Amino acid sequence: MNFLKIKETCLYVTDLAQAKAFYAEVLELPLISYVEGKHLFFKAGSSVLLLFNPEDSKHKVSPPAHYGGGKQHFAFEVEDKDYEKAKAWIEGKGIKILEEVTWQSGKKSFYFEDPAGNVLEIVPQNAIWPE
Amino acid sequence: MNFLKIKETCLYVTDLAQAKAFYAEVLELPLISYVEGKHLFFKAGSSVLLLFNPEDSKHKVSPPAHYGGGKQHFAFEVEDKDYEKAKAWIEGKGIKILEEVTWQSGKKSFYFEDPAGNVLEIVPQNAIWPE
Repeated sequence: MNFLKIKETCLYVTDLAQAKAFYAEVLELPLISYVEGKHLFFKAGSSVLLLFNPEDSKHKVSPPAHYGGGKQHFAFEVEDKDYEKAKAWIEGKGIKILEEVTWQSGKKSFYFEDPAGNVLEIVPQNAIWPE
Repeated sequence: MNFLKIKETCLYVTDLAQAKAFYAEVLELPLISYVEGKHLFFKAGSSVLLLFNPEDSKHKVSPPAHYGGGKQHFAFEVEDKDYEKAKAWIEGKGIKILEEVTWQSGKKSFYFEDPAGNVLEIVPQNAIWPE
């Protein structure tokens, strides 16, 4: 089976208003849908980032119920030429960079948190993963 | 900031051997790395699917610790022409399809579970989300 990519990535957060302020206004992701207390959907390049209130989504009937929690991790990909710009952009917004890692390729990625404590990463193309 | 896509999507499962049997042998995702008790990484088209044992990953020091749990959701994207083939392929492996949804576009997606109860979806291009 030829999977093109993972299209939908989900986070589970109880405070969607707080998440909206961060992902829409700080990270400037284009908003697709916000239903208070239920969900918050964003475009993230050619992927979508879906945030669900697990207290609601665990009781859904259709599509099937799902839920989660914790301090989840995911990574945004940027073009090589945008990596340093992305780091300066995040720092310029007053967001603390938790760590920057240099990978075997010699390229770097960096980590920071959203307000719920999820661990986000920005990684340039071909830095960590085989294409 | 021009995010290309979400490159890394994480699931948190305590039984990595069971997950390996499913994602490597049933879904036939190319294995990138497996470290028993720690993690299991796969190519998923141009994305990567990272499975972590949260009992281990919550104690990591570098890169930053993260963890999660529950019945998480994510979606693989396929070309339109591969959608019905994907459904038949999943059914042919004896996996129960939980639900098939018809979206406003007229296109469909379908849902099924991994052995840990995570809710997976296969969605054709341009079925649900704005490009």
